[in-house]
Amino acid sequence: MNFSSENYDKTHPRILKALLKSNNGFVPSYGKDEYTFKAIEKFKEVFGTKELETFFCFNGTGANNFAIGSLTEKHNAVLCSDVSHLYTAESTAPETFTGCRLYPLKTRDGKILIEDLLLKIKTKNDVHLPPASVLTITQPTEYGTIYDRKELKIIAKHCRQNNILLHVDGARLFNALAAMNCSLADFVKISGADALTLGGTKSGLLFGEAVVFFNSKRFKNLHYHHKRSMQLASKNRFIAVQFSELLKDGLWKKIATHTNNLASYFKQELMKTGNAEIAYPVETNMVFMKMGQTQFDKLKSSAHFYRWDFQQEEVRFAFSFSNTKKEINSFFKEYRKAIKGNSLSN
Amino acid sequence: MNFSSENYDKTHPRILKALLKSNNGFVPSYGKDEYTFKAIEKFKEVFGTKELETFFCFNGTGANNFAIGSLTEKHNAVLCSDVSHLYTAESTAPETFTGCRLYPLKTRDGKILIEDLLLKIKTKNDVHLPPASVLTITQPTEYGTIYDRKELKIIAKHCRQNNILLHVDGARLFNALAAMNCSLADFVKISGADALTLGGTKSGLLFGEAVVFFNSKRFKNLHYHHKRSMQLASKNRFIAVQFSELLKDGLWKKIATHTNNLASYFKQELMKTGNAEIAYPVETNMVFMKMGQTQFDKLKSSAHFYRWDFQQEEVRFAFSFSNTKKEINSFFKEYRKAIKGNSLSN
Amino acid sequence: MNFSSENYDKTHPRILKALLKSNNGFVPSYGKDEYTFKAIEKFKEVFGTKELETFFCFNGTGANNFAIGSLTEKHNAVLCSDVSHLYTAESTAPETFTGCRLYPLKTRDGKILIEDLLLKIKTKNDVHLPPASVLTITQPTEYGTIYDRKELKIIAKHCRQNNILLHVDGARLFNALAAMNCSLADFVKISGADALTLGGTKSGLLFGEAVVFFNSKRFKNLHYHHKRSMQLASKNRFIAVQFSELLKDGLWKKIATHTNNLASYFKQELMKTGNAEIAYPVETNMVFMKMGQTQFDKLKSSAHFYRWDFQQEEVRFAFSFSNTKKEINSFFKEYRKAIKGNSLSN
Amino acid sequence: MNFSSENYDKTHPRILKALLKSNNGFVPSYGKDEYTFKAIEKFKEVFGTKELETFFCFNGTGANNFAIGSLTEKHNAVLCSDVSHLYTAESTAPETFTGCRLYPLKTRDGKILIEDLLLKIKTKNDVHLPPASVLTITQPTEYGTIYDRKELKIIAKHCRQNNILLHVDGARLFNALAAMNCSLADFVKISGADALTLGGTKSGLLFGEAVVFFNSKRFKNLHYHHKRSMQLASKNRFIAVQFSELLKDGLWKKIATHTNNLASYFKQELMKTGNAEIAYPVETNMVFMKMGQTQFDKLKSSAHFYRWDFQQEEVRFAFSFSNTKKEINSFFKEYRKAIKGNSLSN
Repeated sequence: MNFSSENYDKTHPRILKALLKSNNGFVPSYGKDEYTFKAIEKFKEVFGTKELETFFCFNGTGANNFAIGSLTEKHNAVLCSDVSHLYTAESTAPETFTGCRLYPLKTRDGKILIEDLLLKIKTKNDVHLPPASVLTITQPTEYGTIYDRKELKIIAKHCRQNNILLHVDGARLFNALAAMNCSLADFVKISGADALTLGGTKSGLLFGEAVVFFNSKRFKNLHYHHKRSMQLASKNRFIAVQFSELLKDGLWKKIATHTNNLASYFKQELMKTGNAEIAYPVETNMVFMKMGQTQFDKLKSSAHFYRWDFQQEEVRFAFSFSNTKKEINSFFKEYRKAIKGNSLSN
Repeated sequence: MNFSSENYDKTHPRILKALLKSNNGFVPSYGKDEYTFKAIEKFKEVFGTKELETFFCFNGTGANNFAIGSLTEKHNAVLCSDVSHLYTAESTAPETFTGCRLYPLKTRDGKILIEDLLLKIKTKNDVHLPPASVLTITQPTEYGTIYDRKELKIIAKHCRQNNILLHVDGARLFNALAAMNCSLADFVKISGADALTLGGTKSGLLFGEAVVFFNSKRFKNLHYHHKRSMQLASKNRFIAVQFSELLKDGLWKKIATHTNNLASYFKQELMKTGNAEIAYPVETNMVFMKMGQTQFDKLKSSAHFYRWDFQQEEVRFAFSFSNTKKEINSFFKEYRKAIKGNSLSN
Repeated sequence: MNFSSENYDKTHPRILKALLKSNNGFVPSYGKDEYTFKAIEKFKEVFGTKELETFFCFNGTGANNFAIGSLTEKHNAVLCSDVSHLYTAESTAPETFTGCRLYPLKTRDGKILIEDLLLKIKTKNDVHLPPASVLTITQPTEYGTIYDRKELKIIAKHCRQNNILLHVDGARLFNALAAMNCSLADFVKISGADALTLGGTKSGLLFGEAVVFFNSKRFKNLHYHHKRSMQLASKNRFIAVQFSELLKDGLWKKIATHTNNLASYFKQELMKTGNAEIAYPVETNMVFMKMGQTQFDKLKSSAHFYRWDFQQEEVRFAFSFSNTKKEINSFFKEYRKAIKGNSLSN
Repeated sequence: MNFSSENYDKTHPRILKALLKSNNGFVPSYGKDEYTFKAIEKFKEVFGTKELETFFCFNGTGANNFAIGSLTEKHNAVLCSDVSHLYTAESTAPETFTGCRLYPLKTRDGKILIEDLLLKIKTKNDVHLPPASVLTITQPTEYGTIYDRKELKIIAKHCRQNNILLHVDGARLFNALAAMNCSLADFVKISGADALTLGGTKSGLLFGEAVVFFNSKRFKNLHYHHKRSMQLASKNRFIAVQFSELLKDGLWKKIATHTNNLASYFKQELMKTGNAEIAYPVETNMVFMKMGQTQFDKLKSSAHFYRWDFQQEEVRFAFSFSNTKKEINSFFKEYRKAIKGNSLSN
């Protein structure tokens, strides 16, 4: 039983099949091939606009830094959540690559606090303080929670009013959209996102992410930034074709609905045990709960999952497309044994 | 009456005289002159050790970034107070020049909270999170408060135990030392500072700061970093000779004692009015107080001082060597008029 | 017929098979999986030493900049050939990620001129000029030529004597080794390479490069640099397993020998036409020749190959594992038609 | 006798006097003072246009990198002469601060070769090669030679036609203008300069340079770049007032004419000895000549001057405002002794 991360899982069979089909003959390199052209058309279709530019990237860190580096100038700051991947898991790539300051915003359940956003936006110190030009939010957040339509509109409004561009780190965006019953096109309309990192790896791709810029004529030199960010793949067809498949016939939605349901089921089973403290609302495909070291040690031989925050004694269960209800049932057999006679915090 | 900043003041007469005396004939450029050599000897004398390297710099931003850039590698983070000059008043120079992440620490009265320091030191995320290699503290803080001997020793201990180098931004260090009745040599012993930015501009220099590295054999390529940071002056004698004078016969202490006393006197007069809320302990040469916009508007024609924090309605009075008790007395004549019939927050 | 680039070709069947076999079940992410461990062991085996560290990367630009960024400090310069991929095809990634100056060295047939290397090494300007700490050479060069054993030893000697680390960009190293009849282990011994970018993409991988550091205890924080360079793959097994296969049973040598032979055969056929000016010695899997625009236009409908240098009227034929002698024979049928009645430069 | 560098000289008496006069009372910091405002007006007057922005800087390295960093984006390259100060004497500040590639252009007598400029401008490699957006030339060059009006117009034309912005490093611009009998306003018209580094230190200032942007509305965020470049002086009046004096009543021209004349006189005396090989045309205030080590050793006890290029056995004589004809006469007494019975190259 492995609930560690979608990154542990294999490639999704349908995506693999599409990848293999494209592994045929010679095609131009660096994205000048038909597979890439078709994938770009697919993006225009699913986002419902021709006014976008799509770039394929290798990984999330590369995609985020390419996106944000393209939206900022050398003297800017970037507002981000204090638990964001950008702030906690991308080393010094943001500073090196964008040259900008990261300003962490306080969060509740992984979501930025609007009052802190406004405080940081309004903090001015003439030329001395780097002015924020971009806000990046993660949807769903690193804790699996979702900014709902209303929250997205509020953020969009504050960004617009303050000339702040909005970047969305959508490493798991499909899970949010499935939960919100929202299309990609509607999400961009509601959020007013200027740029989006769309995660592929966590949705079953062998590798690959995409970055989409909206109303993209505003942004200059995107192709240069893509190359400068070391994200331009020579055999680009192999990323492009996977995205084409993921976006075809709602495959992304099937996968996301499945993994969201697993988290929901896991939570339901957990509640039945009467002995669990869920740490954050379970809204997509992850469950965070409090768990003491003793209990963790008992369980770790039968199931893999992450000790997320040692100080908070939090653990994370993430569900990937290969996971099943059956595995969850097996897990709870072990879990019930482990908690027998134990109080919560052991 | 001008209590805006030491930066508004002219050059101190004694320093000017020394500067003029050095303005004589040809001497080697880029710090290879006798004035610079003598100043470097003076630093060794006042710090009581030969194991240091001193570099002269143009301004505080340059000095801080040169110092911190020399102590860090490309993948590191720097811990700093959330109200530090580095974090609030040096644009994106830190990110650009050091390539490192700045992690803001929470503060009370301008001083870092040890619990937040420990929290940030202990936060680990393998290679994903940039590890802190340097802590920078400001002594006195941007609010004029002082880390006392005990607090310095605690910080030193935590730094040592966690392999964190300590940088001190001493833009106004002389004011702290005068208040603590502490020599430069003792300060370095107590704090265990690895590198120090020693401010000259705010102590009466026409321009110029110094950076000192202690047990400096540990640090490689400092001269290259000095040049790379654009801080190597061609006519370096003109910075060096000012520092020689400032460090001679305790001139620094006379100036600092005078300005500390002015702040103390100001505070005492303010308390007498029975109508003032001091914002932070007055420990060096600055007084911060709450003041509403109405009152500020009444006073601003007769005296210059900074509206420091609009959200907190704080103002700052900073005292420079040219300021006098007489000016303070004049100020309070105006102040008493201004507050007549007013409540605090108007 | 496509002789454009190895990047145009599909994934090699044996590598694809290995990749598919690894696409099975959950394994730890970020290189903490058995596939990665085995691949790392394989590298130790083929390089004949335990004293190395291997890192998998996404692409050549990422690999080169990770390698060179790990060998340099912020004030250094990097010596490179003036036709190197680093200097001509990696945008500003080197400046951004390493912060260092690139110094281009003059070349003949793609190989650096030793006299220019010595000139640049010996050029000093105290702290004002960034000192070179790394030389990077490409083997085989971007023109398919090879530094022979003697030349490698001379370069190694000059590097050692001047405290210059040597990085080898081996995007096509296997082709050079096949041509030299040299093992990976011997190549490192002869060249004294401190770090090596070992190309996978051009040798039949779906994607992926590797960077190897030798006597790697000298280099600190390599794992941090790997992450900082945005080269740490979440599903790392999929790069690792491809390299394991490439290095198994001499697969790399079979592929490289085949493509080298194709270039050799192409050259031989070209010479027979009596109407061709080869631009550089044909030593690996590429042929560069002079070709006027008229002739290029005639041929481009029947065969794909690159117009390499417009000013020199040079074209490049690169041979990949899928290419065959039969294709070359077909090409020359068209070529003979195209040149009929034409002089060389048309 | 000291002909080492203008950087060795003291502050010019008139500039010092102006500086002392401004050392009076409290004035706003960070350039918001009347001295700075007046200096900025003076720049508009001498350049004959209101459409400019002037910024004061600490030193030449800071000024050049601020200027070029403001004209470039993260993916750009900068064309510069291969003997330029930027390329040979500013460490890695350009790479760190601008993030851009420096492309060295070949030179003759310190001046860029137009054919190499065009070659580099025309070299394209799609997104792979960083495109040049700025050309920087030094006037007069590092060898004291001058781009004449015709040469400047040719460079301007090529820049305009290729969308290349022109930066002029005018560390010694006044010497060029005095030699060309050209005003600052005319120089900008002829050269079409978009930005200019105007040197103060070498013209008798205690310290300080200026950067001027022309038609400056095109450039955004210049004030932020100024701060980010660590060039914003807190006591800015002390730089500004020196420039006001230098630009008043043609003081700059008096100084430059004097030092140019000294070089001219030196050259004339040198020619009389019948034993000298001048290395470059003597057009401003410097004389470069061939001199062997033996001869240099004989002279160095009586006169200071630089061994400029060890490989070429070149020495440099630079003349500053304090130098006199009398000193030159004294030098030649020694020189004639030193060369007696010696051939040129000893």
